[in-house]
Amino acid sequence: MSGEAEIAELLHGWAASVRAHDLDGALKDRSADIVMFDVPEPLQARGIDAYRDTWTLYFGDAGSRRFELLETHIAAGNDVAWVHALLRCTTADAPAGRLTMGLRRTGGRWVVEHEHHSFPISLGPPSQDADV
Amino acid sequence: MSGEAEIAELLHGWAASVRAHDLDGALKDRSADIVMFDVPEPLQARGIDAYRDTWTLYFGDAGSRRFELLETHIAAGNDVAWVHALLRCTTADAPAGRLTMGLRRTGGRWVVEHEHHSFPISLGPPSQDADV
Repeated sequence: MSGEAEIAELLHGWAASVRAHDLDGALKDRSADIVMFDVPEPLQARGIDAYRDTWTLYFGDAGSRRFELLETHIAAGNDVAWVHALLRCTTADAPAGRLTMGLRRTGGRWVVEHEHHSFPISLGPPSQDADV
Repeated sequence: MSGEAEIAELLHGWAASVRAHDLDGALKDRSADIVMFDVPEPLQARGIDAYRDTWTLYFGDAGSRRFELLETHIAAGNDVAWVHALLRCTTADAPAGRLTMGLRRTGGRWVVEHEHHSFPISLGPPSQDADV
């Protein structure tokens, strides 16, 4: 199997685990030293325990049963790879989030060493709540 | 030079170009097909023209003369690499942003094919502007 196909399988299983609120599945294939940049604060979550906390938080969110990767792009070398994708992860139909992932192949398997999840900041006009 | 050293040099030069508001320097070593997930909307900017627009926007920001990478981590294989770092890019002293980058080595040089810049969403209490 190519590196791209191996990583596509990893991503598919991981997204299914997130949708099922399966914490062990969400943590599978993650490095003990993973560095996570999550949608909400903190600025970074370093290590698997802090990474676990980000999922405990997320599983409490109303839209968290929806976690679909769209426009997934995988760049895989022999032992280093990265992924970017859009995320449909709220109750809205349009994708609202972005995901980037950094991986390394060690001991014959791919391990996720880095994840970056974010929502863009809106540039729309500020809401007009004052003086209504 | 190792892949890590080559990429460190690329990052150093790029951050200096951003600080100098040097648009050509900011666009150097970028793929024509770069996919950018920027701090503000849109959700994604695809291609070098859309990528250029993100920098034109950013150079109009008051804090944009400050663009320092901290805690930079580089994972480089033979032809695929990724980077994550924190960003000091506002007038505040603490790093406020996060950066992830995906690269490929083609034709003997590293090319940035993906960037993901974000600020985390605050989980603090909402501001108490009402009824003051």
